[in-house]
Amino acid sequence: MLPLYRLTISCPDKTGIVAAVSNFIAEQGGNLIEANYHTEQDSQWFFMRNEISFSASSFQADDFQQQFSSLAEQFEMLWQLIDTRTAKNIVLLVSQHSHCLADILHRWHSGDLAGEVVAVISNHNTLCDIAQWYNVPFHHIPVTQGTKQQANLAIAKLLTGYQTNTVVLARYMQIIPASLCDAYSGRMINIHHSFLPSFVGANPYERAYQRGVKLIGATCHYVTSDLDEGPIIEQDVVRVSHRQSKDDMLKNGKDVERVALARGLQYHLEDRVMVHGRRTIILE
Amino acid sequence: MLPLYRLTISCPDKTGIVAAVSNFIAEQGGNLIEANYHTEQDSQWFFMRNEISFSASSFQADDFQQQFSSLAEQFEMLWQLIDTRTAKNIVLLVSQHSHCLADILHRWHSGDLAGEVVAVISNHNTLCDIAQWYNVPFHHIPVTQGTKQQANLAIAKLLTGYQTNTVVLARYMQIIPASLCDAYSGRMINIHHSFLPSFVGANPYERAYQRGVKLIGATCHYVTSDLDEGPIIEQDVVRVSHRQSKDDMLKNGKDVERVALARGLQYHLEDRVMVHGRRTIILE
Amino acid sequence: MLPLYRLTISCPDKTGIVAAVSNFIAEQGGNLIEANYHTEQDSQWFFMRNEISFSASSFQADDFQQQFSSLAEQFEMLWQLIDTRTAKNIVLLVSQHSHCLADILHRWHSGDLAGEVVAVISNHNTLCDIAQWYNVPFHHIPVTQGTKQQANLAIAKLLTGYQTNTVVLARYMQIIPASLCDAYSGRMINIHHSFLPSFVGANPYERAYQRGVKLIGATCHYVTSDLDEGPIIEQDVVRVSHRQSKDDMLKNGKDVERVALARGLQYHLEDRVMVHGRRTIILE
Amino acid sequence: MLPLYRLTISCPDKTGIVAAVSNFIAEQGGNLIEANYHTEQDSQWFFMRNEISFSASSFQADDFQQQFSSLAEQFEMLWQLIDTRTAKNIVLLVSQHSHCLADILHRWHSGDLAGEVVAVISNHNTLCDIAQWYNVPFHHIPVTQGTKQQANLAIAKLLTGYQTNTVVLARYMQIIPASLCDAYSGRMINIHHSFLPSFVGANPYERAYQRGVKLIGATCHYVTSDLDEGPIIEQDVVRVSHRQSKDDMLKNGKDVERVALARGLQYHLEDRVMVHGRRTIILE
Repeated sequence: MLPLYRLTISCPDKTGIVAAVSNFIAEQGGNLIEANYHTEQDSQWFFMRNEISFSASSFQADDFQQQFSSLAEQFEMLWQLIDTRTAKNIVLLVSQHSHCLADILHRWHSGDLAGEVVAVISNHNTLCDIAQWYNVPFHHIPVTQGTKQQANLAIAKLLTGYQTNTVVLARYMQIIPASLCDAYSGRMINIHHSFLPSFVGANPYERAYQRGVKLIGATCHYVTSDLDEGPIIEQDVVRVSHRQSKDDMLKNGKDVERVALARGLQYHLEDRVMVHGRRTIILE
Repeated sequence: MLPLYRLTISCPDKTGIVAAVSNFIAEQGGNLIEANYHTEQDSQWFFMRNEISFSASSFQADDFQQQFSSLAEQFEMLWQLIDTRTAKNIVLLVSQHSHCLADILHRWHSGDLAGEVVAVISNHNTLCDIAQWYNVPFHHIPVTQGTKQQANLAIAKLLTGYQTNTVVLARYMQIIPASLCDAYSGRMINIHHSFLPSFVGANPYERAYQRGVKLIGATCHYVTSDLDEGPIIEQDVVRVSHRQSKDDMLKNGKDVERVALARGLQYHLEDRVMVHGRRTIILE
Repeated sequence: MLPLYRLTISCPDKTGIVAAVSNFIAEQGGNLIEANYHTEQDSQWFFMRNEISFSASSFQADDFQQQFSSLAEQFEMLWQLIDTRTAKNIVLLVSQHSHCLADILHRWHSGDLAGEVVAVISNHNTLCDIAQWYNVPFHHIPVTQGTKQQANLAIAKLLTGYQTNTVVLARYMQIIPASLCDAYSGRMINIHHSFLPSFVGANPYERAYQRGVKLIGATCHYVTSDLDEGPIIEQDVVRVSHRQSKDDMLKNGKDVERVALARGLQYHLEDRVMVHGRRTIILE
Repeated sequence: MLPLYRLTISCPDKTGIVAAVSNFIAEQGGNLIEANYHTEQDSQWFFMRNEISFSASSFQADDFQQQFSSLAEQFEMLWQLIDTRTAKNIVLLVSQHSHCLADILHRWHSGDLAGEVVAVISNHNTLCDIAQWYNVPFHHIPVTQGTKQQANLAIAKLLTGYQTNTVVLARYMQIIPASLCDAYSGRMINIHHSFLPSFVGANPYERAYQRGVKLIGATCHYVTSDLDEGPIIEQDVVRVSHRQSKDDMLKNGKDVERVALARGLQYHLEDRVMVHGRRTIILE
C-alpha cells in the first residue's frame, strides 16, 4: 500500500489556485486519486480537498509541508496535510439511549468507519456492556447538579488522555461547557433529534407531534457553545402521519438519527467537511 | 354513474361507533366504496370518512341527514354529508410567481383536480395571461399601503360572488386579514416555501442558505390568523448541498412547493383532511 | 394490562361486513383500539385488521372464536384471532454479513421488536459471537455441495424445535428448498439487496453499478419457491451518483437493507400484512 | 456580461491533467467560475467540466481552440468548448399526455431552462393549443402503420430545419428509428415512466401494480436504438401503497416523471452529463 495523504485547503478565491496546487503535487511525485473543489460565490472563498498517493519511497511529508508553505502563504491558505495511516481516535459520549452507540460500534467493528473508537464515556452505567462486548473502555462519570464542573473536568482529562481526535455526542443528554466546545472546535459532533432549525432544544419529538408536522428529522452538526446552532454536516427526514403516536415518532426517529450521524461522522473522518461560518462544504 | 357521497365524522371515542355508523349506512342501502377511521389515543377522539354509493334511485340525501341526526347527537358527532356531484369552487390568490398557479391550472385542465377553478385574483397583472389561456376570470386588485383594507374588502366580495368553497394562496405575498381567515377557516390553504416550523415568515430560502441546512422544504397548511402557524396538511423536502446558491435553492424549491401544494389541496378537496387542534388527520 | 387481541379478516367484499364485525366485537365487550380495512376494487376483496382490548375478566378467546365462526362462514372469511401476549418466536438465518443481524438483535434487545428472537442459524461461524453476546443460541450448519439436503433437514428440525413463528433470512446466501418455503409460507421473510424487480438474483450492486442507476434499493418480501418473486412487504431506496464505486454502493446499501427489513418485519409481527396474490396490503 | 464558456473533457487518467488544463486556462486569461472533475477508478478514465469567464475583450474562441488542440492531443482528450451565449435549440416530441410538455414549456417561459424550445412535434393534434399559447410552432405528423417511415423522415427533416441541438421525447409513444437515434446520439432524451431497469417496455404502471411494488419511479435517459437501455441521466421515485389503484399510480407517477425529466434535461443543457459506456457522470 502506497502512503495516502489528504491535502485540504481553504482561501480567498483567485485565478490560478488549482493550477498552482496541481503543479506542486505533480512536481512532488504525487498522484491525484480524488480531487474536489468549490468556490462559494457569495464570499469568493475557495475550498479544495485532494487525495494523493506518493509513489516515491523517498517521499517525506515534512519536506512537502515545508515547501508547500510558501505557496500557501502566497494564496493566504488555511491548509492541512493529513497522513491517512494515522488513525483518528474517537471518543463517544452517551447517556442511556443505545441506538446511535450500537450503530457506530457496529460500523467500526465491520471496518466501515474511517477512525478508531478508543473509549465510551457516559453519565450512566446503562450502556457499559455494549462497549465492553466491543472491548472498548467504558468510563462512568455521573453528573449531578453539584458535580457538574468536576465531571466535565474528568471528561476533559479523559479526552486528553486518549489523544482524542474526534468527540461524538451520541445522544449525550448533558450540556457541554464552552471550554470543551472550543478545545474540540470542528472536531466535536452532535446528533440532534430534529430537523434543525425546527425544534431547537429539549423534547423535539413531543413538539413535532404537537405541531403536527408530516416529516420528522435528525441533524448531525458540529458543537459550538451556542446550543444546536453549530454548522450542520448532514440531515435526513422520514415521513410520519397522524397514525404515529409520540412513541412511534421516537422509535422511527431512531433510524434517521443513526443514519444522519453515521453519514456526517464519516464525512468528517474522511476530511471532507470544511466549515465556513455557519455553513459546511462537503467535498465528496 | 350512481350518486357518490362522503360522510365525515369526528367525535369523542366510544365503543360501538363504527358498528352504529356502518349499520346505519347499510340500512340506508349505502355501499361503502372506501372507509377510513382513526382514533387519536391522546385525546380519545375519533375520526371517520366514508365514501358511499347509493344504489337505490329513491335515495334522498335529506332523509339520510334527518335520520342520521339522532345517531350523531347520541355520539356528539361533528359530521357532514357531501354530495360529490356538487363541484367545489376554487379561487386562487397569486402575486408574481407563476409555478404554483400554472401547476394547479394544468392539473385542473387535465381533469386531475377534485374541484373547479373559478377565478384567479392577484395584486399584480403579471399572471393574467396564464389565467386567460385557461379561460379563467382574472381579477387584478392592487394592494398599496393605503388601499389594503379596500383591497381585502374587494377580495372578500369576489370570494362571496364566486360561491367559493376553497381559497388557495398560491404564493400570494400579502397578509390575509383575520376576518377572511375566519370566514374561510379550514377552507383556505397556503403554501409556505419552507419546512415549517423552520423559517417562519419572510425569505425562507435566504435564511435556509445562511443556516446551511442540507434539505429545503415546503409546507401546505390551513391559514389561520396566526401567520404560518395553521394546521399542516402536507410537507415535502429536497436535498441541497453547498453547491446550490440561494438562486438554485429558490429554483429547486419551486418543485417541492408545487408538489406539496398539489397533494395537500387534493386531500382537502377529497374531504380527507380533518383538523384536530393544530394537527391534521389525513384519511387516505 | 388488559388482554389485547388482533382479529384479521379477508373475504369477498359485500355490503355490511364492517357493521357485522363491529357489532360482534361490541357485543363481546371488546373495545377497538385500532381498526383498519381496505377494499381492493379490482378483485372486490375485503381486508380488515382490528386491535381489540377486552375489559371483562371473564373473556374467553375460545368462546369468541366459536361464536365468530358462523359469522365468518356467512361472509366466507379467512380469519385469525391472535393473542398479543403469546410471543412470536423468530429464527434468523444468516451467512457472513452482520449488518442485518446486528440491527435486528439490537432492536429486539431495546424492546422495539414485536417478537422474540430465539435462535440464529448460519452456514458460517462468523457471526457466532454477536448472537452469543445477546444470549441467543447460535447453530452452525455448514452447507457444501454434498451436504445441502442434510443441512436443510437440520434447519427444518431446528425451526420445528424452536416452535418458530417467523423465519428471517437476514442476508442468508443459500437457496431455501420449496418444502421449507411452503411450510413457512407467509411467515418467511427475506431481504433482497436491490429494488425488485430490478436485479433479481445474484450481485445486484455490481449490476446496478454497471447499469448506471441513480438510486439503489432493498426489498423485504415473503419467500416463495420462486426466487425473489414473493409478495413485497417493504422497499426503500437511496440516491447514488457516479462518485460511488461498487464498494460504496455496497456500503450505502447496507443502511437501506437494514431499514427495509426492520420495517417489513415489524409490519409482519404486528399482523399488519395481508397477502393477496403477489401483492400485500399493509394495514397500518 | 463577460463571455462565459464551458470546456468539457474526457480522457484516460494520467498525472498532471488538472495542472495542465488549469495552467492553460489561466494563461489564456480565463477565470474558473466552476470546475468539477472525476476519475472513474474502474476504467481509469478522467472527466472534467470547467465554466470559464474571459475578462479580456480580445478573447478569441478560435485561438483558444487551436492552441488547446496540442494539449488535447497529448492527453488523448475528447473535448468541447461551448459558448454559453449560443442558445441550444430544443424540439419536443409528444403524443397525448400533456404533463411533461406543459412542465417544460412553463420552465422555459419562466427563464428556468438553459435552452430554447423551438418546436413541438406530435403524432396527435391534442396538445396543439398548449404549444400555441407559448407561441411555439406545432407540427402534427400522424403515424399509422403504413406511414411510419414517411413520418420519421418528416421528423428528421424538421429536426434539421430547426437546427436542433436537443430532442426531448416528452412521453412520445412511438419507436424512434435507429438512424435518428444515431444522428442525435447523446442529444436525444427520453422520460420512461418506471424506475429502470424495472418494467422496461409498455405499461409500466400496470405491471408495477401487479407486482405490488411499494415505490414507483421515472427514468430520464439518453435514447439509443436499444429500447429503454440508454445511459440513465436521472431517476426518482415516490412511495405508493395498496391504497393506490392503477389510476392513482398513473396520476402520482406524473409528478415524478415531470421532475426527473426536468432535472435530467437541465443537467444535459448545462453540459454536465458525460456518457461513459452505459453510465453517466453528472458534473454538478
